[in-house]
Amino acid sequence: MDIEIATIGGYEEVGRQMTAVRAGDDIVVFDMGLNLSKVLIHDNVQTERMHSLDLIDMGAIPDDRVMSDLEGDVKAIVPTHGHLDHIGAIGKLAHRYDAPIVASPYTLELVREEINDEGKFAVDNDLVEMDAGETMAIGDRCELEFVNVTHSVIGAINPVLHTPEGAVVYGLDKRVDHTPVVGDPIDMQRFREIGREGDGVLCYIEDCTNANRKGRTPSEAVARRQLKDVMHSMEDWDGGIVATTFASHIARVKSLVEFADDIGREPILLGRSMEKYSGAAERIGAVTFPDNLGMFGHRKSVDRSLERVMNEGKENFLPIVTGHQGEPRAMLTRMGRGETPYDIEDGDKVIFSAGVIPEPTNEGQRYQSEQLLRMQGARIYDDVHVSGHLRQEGHYQMLDALQPQHVIPAHQDMEGFSGYVSLAKSRGYTLGRDLHVTSNGNTIQLVE
Amino acid sequence: MDIEIATIGGYEEVGRQMTAVRAGDDIVVFDMGLNLSKVLIHDNVQTERMHSLDLIDMGAIPDDRVMSDLEGDVKAIVPTHGHLDHIGAIGKLAHRYDAPIVASPYTLELVREEINDEGKFAVDNDLVEMDAGETMAIGDRCELEFVNVTHSVIGAINPVLHTPEGAVVYGLDKRVDHTPVVGDPIDMQRFREIGREGDGVLCYIEDCTNANRKGRTPSEAVARRQLKDVMHSMEDWDGGIVATTFASHIARVKSLVEFADDIGREPILLGRSMEKYSGAAERIGAVTFPDNLGMFGHRKSVDRSLERVMNEGKENFLPIVTGHQGEPRAMLTRMGRGETPYDIEDGDKVIFSAGVIPEPTNEGQRYQSEQLLRMQGARIYDDVHVSGHLRQEGHYQMLDALQPQHVIPAHQDMEGFSGYVSLAKSRGYTLGRDLHVTSNGNTIQLVE
Amino acid sequence: MDIEIATIGGYEEVGRQMTAVRAGDDIVVFDMGLNLSKVLIHDNVQTERMHSLDLIDMGAIPDDRVMSDLEGDVKAIVPTHGHLDHIGAIGKLAHRYDAPIVASPYTLELVREEINDEGKFAVDNDLVEMDAGETMAIGDRCELEFVNVTHSVIGAINPVLHTPEGAVVYGLDKRVDHTPVVGDPIDMQRFREIGREGDGVLCYIEDCTNANRKGRTPSEAVARRQLKDVMHSMEDWDGGIVATTFASHIARVKSLVEFADDIGREPILLGRSMEKYSGAAERIGAVTFPDNLGMFGHRKSVDRSLERVMNEGKENFLPIVTGHQGEPRAMLTRMGRGETPYDIEDGDKVIFSAGVIPEPTNEGQRYQSEQLLRMQGARIYDDVHVSGHLRQEGHYQMLDALQPQHVIPAHQDMEGFSGYVSLAKSRGYTLGRDLHVTSNGNTIQLVE
Amino acid sequence: MDIEIATIGGYEEVGRQMTAVRAGDDIVVFDMGLNLSKVLIHDNVQTERMHSLDLIDMGAIPDDRVMSDLEGDVKAIVPTHGHLDHIGAIGKLAHRYDAPIVASPYTLELVREEINDEGKFAVDNDLVEMDAGETMAIGDRCELEFVNVTHSVIGAINPVLHTPEGAVVYGLDKRVDHTPVVGDPIDMQRFREIGREGDGVLCYIEDCTNANRKGRTPSEAVARRQLKDVMHSMEDWDGGIVATTFASHIARVKSLVEFADDIGREPILLGRSMEKYSGAAERIGAVTFPDNLGMFGHRKSVDRSLERVMNEGKENFLPIVTGHQGEPRAMLTRMGRGETPYDIEDGDKVIFSAGVIPEPTNEGQRYQSEQLLRMQGARIYDDVHVSGHLRQEGHYQMLDALQPQHVIPAHQDMEGFSGYVSLAKSRGYTLGRDLHVTSNGNTIQLVE
Repeated sequence: MDIEIATIGGYEEVGRQMTAVRAGDDIVVFDMGLNLSKVLIHDNVQTERMHSLDLIDMGAIPDDRVMSDLEGDVKAIVPTHGHLDHIGAIGKLAHRYDAPIVASPYTLELVREEINDEGKFAVDNDLVEMDAGETMAIGDRCELEFVNVTHSVIGAINPVLHTPEGAVVYGLDKRVDHTPVVGDPIDMQRFREIGREGDGVLCYIEDCTNANRKGRTPSEAVARRQLKDVMHSMEDWDGGIVATTFASHIARVKSLVEFADDIGREPILLGRSMEKYSGAAERIGAVTFPDNLGMFGHRKSVDRSLERVMNEGKENFLPIVTGHQGEPRAMLTRMGRGETPYDIEDGDKVIFSAGVIPEPTNEGQRYQSEQLLRMQGARIYDDVHVSGHLRQEGHYQMLDALQPQHVIPAHQDMEGFSGYVSLAKSRGYTLGRDLHVTSNGNTIQLVE
Repeated sequence: MDIEIATIGGYEEVGRQMTAVRAGDDIVVFDMGLNLSKVLIHDNVQTERMHSLDLIDMGAIPDDRVMSDLEGDVKAIVPTHGHLDHIGAIGKLAHRYDAPIVASPYTLELVREEINDEGKFAVDNDLVEMDAGETMAIGDRCELEFVNVTHSVIGAINPVLHTPEGAVVYGLDKRVDHTPVVGDPIDMQRFREIGREGDGVLCYIEDCTNANRKGRTPSEAVARRQLKDVMHSMEDWDGGIVATTFASHIARVKSLVEFADDIGREPILLGRSMEKYSGAAERIGAVTFPDNLGMFGHRKSVDRSLERVMNEGKENFLPIVTGHQGEPRAMLTRMGRGETPYDIEDGDKVIFSAGVIPEPTNEGQRYQSEQLLRMQGARIYDDVHVSGHLRQEGHYQMLDALQPQHVIPAHQDMEGFSGYVSLAKSRGYTLGRDLHVTSNGNTIQLVE
Repeated sequence: MDIEIATIGGYEEVGRQMTAVRAGDDIVVFDMGLNLSKVLIHDNVQTERMHSLDLIDMGAIPDDRVMSDLEGDVKAIVPTHGHLDHIGAIGKLAHRYDAPIVASPYTLELVREEINDEGKFAVDNDLVEMDAGETMAIGDRCELEFVNVTHSVIGAINPVLHTPEGAVVYGLDKRVDHTPVVGDPIDMQRFREIGREGDGVLCYIEDCTNANRKGRTPSEAVARRQLKDVMHSMEDWDGGIVATTFASHIARVKSLVEFADDIGREPILLGRSMEKYSGAAERIGAVTFPDNLGMFGHRKSVDRSLERVMNEGKENFLPIVTGHQGEPRAMLTRMGRGETPYDIEDGDKVIFSAGVIPEPTNEGQRYQSEQLLRMQGARIYDDVHVSGHLRQEGHYQMLDALQPQHVIPAHQDMEGFSGYVSLAKSRGYTLGRDLHVTSNGNTIQLVE
Repeated sequence: MDIEIATIGGYEEVGRQMTAVRAGDDIVVFDMGLNLSKVLIHDNVQTERMHSLDLIDMGAIPDDRVMSDLEGDVKAIVPTHGHLDHIGAIGKLAHRYDAPIVASPYTLELVREEINDEGKFAVDNDLVEMDAGETMAIGDRCELEFVNVTHSVIGAINPVLHTPEGAVVYGLDKRVDHTPVVGDPIDMQRFREIGREGDGVLCYIEDCTNANRKGRTPSEAVARRQLKDVMHSMEDWDGGIVATTFASHIARVKSLVEFADDIGREPILLGRSMEKYSGAAERIGAVTFPDNLGMFGHRKSVDRSLERVMNEGKENFLPIVTGHQGEPRAMLTRMGRGETPYDIEDGDKVIFSAGVIPEPTNEGQRYQSEQLLRMQGARIYDDVHVSGHLRQEGHYQMLDALQPQHVIPAHQDMEGFSGYVSLAKSRGYTLGRDLHVTSNGNTIQLVE
C-alpha cells in the first residue's frame, strides 16, 4: 500500500497546523489550525465573516489546495486538542471535506463552539467522539487509534494511523508528564508497544516547539508546586491578588482555584475565554470546580462581579483573568489601564502563571501591560509556569519508544527544527533519507 | 551612641564579603570572604601560603586596612554561613583581631577546616558556637542575635546587632523559604518583631545578588519537586546516571540521595568538596544520610569506588560528583575527558542540579564540560535548580517586615544594585539620604 | 560662594532632562525635556492642552517643584540641543521663570516651534541666541559659555558655568567626533583649557546613555561611509528604495540626499517631522540642500508627492521618511500597511539609518513595521547608523580633559550609571565623596 | 551528462569544508579544511603527526570516505582561499588523490606552507597557480573558472565548474565588496554573465555563515574608515597602543600599518601567524608594506623587538599582534599576563580589529584576555571590524545574479541554514526539490 504525507500547514511556523496522511485510497487529516498572529498584525480584521481564500492569502489558515494532489478520500478530520492553532481553521475548511470530525470529548466540545461562532460557512460534518485508548476503522485496512498524551490543555491525544506498512504517529503537541494534575499520565507504555508490535512505526511526525531547549520539560506537578509556593507566600497579604493564565489550561486554573482556597480567598474566573474553556471542561465532567465558583465572560457580568469584589474587600478574592500575554483588550490589561471597577493599589500582587511567547510584538504588549500595572503599584510574579511541549530529552525518549523508520519534524520553522535535526542525526537518522525536513505544501512519499 | 558601618568588601562584586559595625566603642565584623575568581584568573596561584597583603592587592580578600579608621575594639567576628565568599578569608585576616569567631554549628565546623587548611598564618581566635534564636552580649549595651534564614547551605543566619539606637540587621545571604527541605523555615516572624520592637531597625544591609530579577525565588521544595520529576523520569534507564550540584548544598544532596533510592540506585558522593561538606553536616547531626552512603574525596578512593561501579554495573549507582560549573579539575569534567574509571556511554544521563554562574570564563568552562560529555553520548539535564538568593518580591517582603530607617545594598556591583535601588525608591527611600549606595572601603556614619 | 546642583529630571531615565545650578544667588537651568514614552503608554493623550502638574504626575515632564528649595533667581534657561528630551517641556515649564531662554541658533529655532505648538500656556520668555564659543554674564560673578560639541543633531553645545569656585560643565549629550559631516568638530581643545585654567572644573555632569558600552562611538563620517556603501550597492536596482532616519539628524539626512543623487535618484523628504527639522536647518543656514529638494509634511501634499513618484517611476526617487522606530502612525509604517499611494513591491529596498531604541514596546512596534514591509516583499537594510552618545572611551577622554573635582552621572537610571561609576572609580573618584550617584529631585551642595 | 554533488564536510559546522562535484567521470574537489575547535577541546593534541582517520574520528577533518561512492577520477583539488577551515586538511587528505592542487597565488603560497608543516604524510600533488578570470579544462567537456570575490583574506575566488548541463558555482566564502582596500572588487558582472549564458547555473553552493543576519555586510572600506576614526582619536596619546587582528587579514593589517604612520608610530608585526601571512603576501607581491616594516614570529626575535620598543618608548610604536580571540598562548594574552617585555600600563589602548567568534569557550577566553589587560589599566576598543561573509542582502543579490536551478546551503549547521532557507523560499525555491538542505557525507544527484 502506498503511503504519502502532505505537510500542509505548520511546517514553517507555530500555528495553522494541518497534515494529511494518505494510505492507499484513504486519507486522514490531522488538525486544521489558525495562525492568530497573521490576523492580528492587521488592524480591525474580523475573521468570522472572511472567506477561506483570503485567510489563506494572509497566511492565517492552512493552504489546503495541495489536497487536490492526493488521490483518495478523506475519511476523518482529527484535531488533536483544543488549541486554536489546531482547531481554529475548522470553521473555514472542514466543510470542504465529506468526512466526520473525530476528537476526544473536550476537544470536540471546543470544536462545536468553533463551528457555532463561524459566520461565513455552514459546517455540518459529523462530530464523532473518541476517547484515548479507543480506535476506529479507516477504510478496509487501516485503523485510527488515540493515545493519551499530556499537554497544557486537557483531552490531548496523539492519533496513530495503523496501516499495513506500519503505524503513522502524529506526535503534536505534548510533553512527557507522569503527574499531570488533571487527567491521566502520558501513555508511554502504549507508545513502546506501538514501536515494537507488527511492522513498528513507519513514520513519526514530531512537535519541535522546544526542540532547541536542553533537558526535560517539567511535569505540571512542578508548576503546581511552584504556584503553591508563590500563593502560600502571599497568605498574610491583606490587599488584592490577581492571577492570569492560559484560559484553556484547566489543570492550572484548577490549581489556582485550590490555592486561592488555601489562603482564604474566593476565586472568580473572569473574561470570555475563561468562561468558555472552564465552562466546557466542567460541562463534560473533565474537572470538578467548587459549586459556587463564579465564571463571567460578558462585560456587564464581569463588571458586576468586580464591583462586588471591591465592595466586599479585595482581600477576600482571587480574580483569575485573561491577559497573560498583555493582549491589549484582555481583562488584565484593562485592569492595568484602570478601565474596570477593580482598583490595583500599592502592593497588590499580580501572578502571571504563563510564559511570554517569544515574539517581539507580543513581548512589547506584555511589557506594556506590566508597566501599566506597576505604575499603579502592583508587584509582578511572572513565569510561574512550565511549557506544554517536549524539550530535547522528551524527543529522545519518544524516538527510543517508537523507533520510527521515518521522522518528520513539525510545529516550527527551520530554525526551530535545527535542534531536532541534530538530535535525530545523533540517533542515526540521515537528512534527506529518513529524516524529512520539509515545509508547507509538500508531499512525502514514504511507501510507493 | 554613635553608630558607623564600614563596607569593607563585597560592595563592588560578589565575593570577599566583609562589613564592620561600630556601636560606640564596640565593633562586630560580619563575614571575611574570598573572591575566588580573582585567584583563578592567574595561572598556578596557591593561596594557602600567600600573604594577606598580596591577596588584598589581587582583589581576592577584603582590604581590611580601613578597620584602622574605626575607633573601637572588635568584639566578635561573625561569619553568616559557610560559603567561601563569606568565610574564605578568615585564615588570612582573623588572626589580626583579638576576638572570637561566633557562628552557627555548621558554619563553625567549616571555619575550623578553613583554619586547618591555612598554611601561612596561625589562627587561634576562640571559636564560639551560637544557634539561631540565641543571643550574646556585645560590650555593655549591645546584643548580638542570630535569626534563622534559609539559603543554599544549611546553618545560615542573619546576625542582628541590637544597639540603643535600634537594630542593625546584616541580611546576607538568604531567600524567603517556608519549606526548606532541611532545617527550619526562615524566621519571618522574628524579623517582623525586630521591625516593630523598641526603636525598630536602624539599618538593614541587604543581599542584592538577584535584585534585578522579578518575582519570588522559589522554595527548595520546588527544586526538590523538579529534581524528583527528572529522576523519576529516568526510572527505566538501564545505563549510567551522574548528578552534580554544589557540594555545600546539603538539602539538594539529600534529595539526590533519596531519589536515587526511589529509582533503585545506590548514591555515592565523589570529590573532595563532596566529602568535606556532607561529612561536616553529618558530623554535627544536621542531616542523616543512609548508613552505607559512600563519600570519597581522595583520588585513589574515588577511583576505587568508580571501578566498583563499573564492575557491578553503572545501572545500579548514582555518582553525585563535583563539577557543576565545568571546573577543569573537578570530577565531572575529568569524567568528560575520560580520565576516570567511569565510562560515559551513549544515552547516559548527566543532571546538573545547579545554575550556571553568569560570567564568561565560567560559561566557557561549563560549555566545554558539557561538550566533552556530549561527545561521548551523554544526555544533559541542566538547571534543575533554584537560587539561594532573594529576588525582588523577597526584598519587598523584607523591607515590609523590618521597616528599616537606613538601607545599604550589598553583595553586588553597581549594576547589580540597580534593581534594588529602584525597589527601595518605590518604598520611599531616597538615594544619598537613607538609601546608601556605596563601595568597598567606605564608612557610613548613621548616628553621630 | 556656595554652589549647589539640583538634579531635577533625567536622573532615573532617559528623557525629561532638567538640572539647575545655583552659584550664590544666581541660578541657571539646563534643559527642560519631555519623556515621550510616559505619554505614549496611555491611549489618546494629547499633551498640547494638558496642565504641567498632570504631566509631572505622569512622569512626562520634570518635577520642578524642588526649584522652590533653591534660594536664588533663575538667570537663564539653557537647552543644550533640540531633541525633545531636552526642550519638550519648555512649553509647560519655562513661563514659571522670569528668565531668557539662551540657546544656539538651531536649538532656538526648534524652541520657537515648541512654544508655538503649546496650547495651554503662553510662554513669553525672551529668546536669546548664543553661538558655540560665545559667553554671557550670569549675575556679577559668573559667566556662561557654550562649547561646541557633536551629537546626532546640529547645534549641540555643552554649556559651562564659570564660577569663582571653578567651572560647572553640563556634559549632555554628545560624542567625541572630529569629522561630523555637518558643523564643526567637538572642541576638545577648549575642554582641555577649561580643565587647566583658573580653578579648573568644580563639577562635571555627564551623559551616561552608552556608559555600559566598551570602546569609542564612531564618528558620523563612519556612518556616512557605511550609508554610502549600502546605497551605492543599490545602484543597479530599478525598483523602489525608501530610507528612514531621525528627522532631526540633519547630517544623516544630508548624506541620504547626496547619495540619492550619486545613484541617480531624486530625494524627497516626507512626514511632518522631516519637514520641520530640515526646514528649520535650511532656514537658519546650517545646511544647504539642493534647490529643488521637496519637503512635505501635510498628509495631502505627501500623498500628492507619492502619486507623482508612482507616476514617474519609483526607480527615479528616494523617499526619505519618518518611521525609523516603527511608530504606528509614521510614514513608513503607513507605507507598510498600504495606506499611502506608494506601493512597496517585491525586492524594494528599505534602509533604516537608525538604531532600535532598546525598549520592549518600541522593539515590538519596529518589528511589526518590518514585518508589514516584508510581507509586501521589501528587503530590509537595518542599523546603518552610529549613536550620538559617548561610549566608555569618550568618557575616559572627557575626564582626562576636564579633570573635574566632582562628577555627576546623568541621562540614565542606576543600571545605566553602573558602567560610568566603574570607570570613574578606576580614575580615582569615590562614590559618595566626589562621585555623586543621585536621582530626580535631589540637591547636591558642592561648596558651602 | 550526470552531475552529482558530494557534501563531504562543513555542512553541519563552520570548519572542515570539503565538497566534490562529479560531472560524468570527472571530479573536482573544492576545499579540504580543518575544524580547529575539535582539536582544541582536547588537551595537548598535536595534529602535525596524527593520522587522518584519528582526525576524522575527532571531527577535525572531513570524512572523505564518501568519495569512494563517486565513480570518476579527481581531476583537481581547488582550495578557494587560504583560511584553515578551507586548506587545513590538505596535508592529511590531498595525497590520497592523484590530482593537482589548483589555487590563486596567495592561496597556493599558504598551501605550500601547510604541506611543509605536515609531519605525517608526504604530499606531492602538483601545485598549479591560476588567477581569477582564468580557466582550465577538466576532462574533455568541462572547464574550471575562477571568479574574483572579496573576503577577509586576499586571493579569494569562487570556482565555477562549467559543464554541459550548466555551471556549478561553489560560492564559499565571500562578501559583496566593491571597495575592498586591497585587491579587486567582487566580479558581480561575471556572475551575472554566468547566470545568463548557455544553460545558466545548474547549481549554486552558498556560504551561509551570516545568513541569519539582516541587511548587507559592509565593505572593507567601512572597517577601514572606522579603524581610522579609532586610531586618529588616539593621536595625542603618549603611551602604549597595541592592535590585534586576524593575521591573514592583509587588508586590515595594511590599514593598521598606514594609520600607525598617520599618528606617528612605527608599526611592528609580532607573532608567528603575523609573520607567516604578511610575509607570504609580500613575497608574492600582493601587498607592499613599508621597507622597514618589522615582522617577527619566533619568541626570541619577538622579545628582542619588544625590548627595543620599551627602550625607545612605547609612544613611538604600534605592535600589531596575534590574540584577537583571546587565544591562551597568543601574543596579546601573554602581554596581558605580563609574560613579555612589553608593559601594559594605565591608559594604554588595545584595539581589537576583529569580532568575537560566538562560541562559549572562545567568548570565555576572550573575556579573560580582556580582563587581564584591564587589570593592568588597558583601555579596550573592540569590534573595529566587519565580517567577511555575506548577510541576507548579499545572498539575495547572488541569487538574482546567478538564477541557479538548484541551491545548496553550506558552511553552517541547520540553525545557520535557517535564514537562508527562508530567503531562498521567498525567491521561489522549494525545500527538497531545488533547495537542498543536507549534511556531511551525503550525495545529491542533480542530473541523471
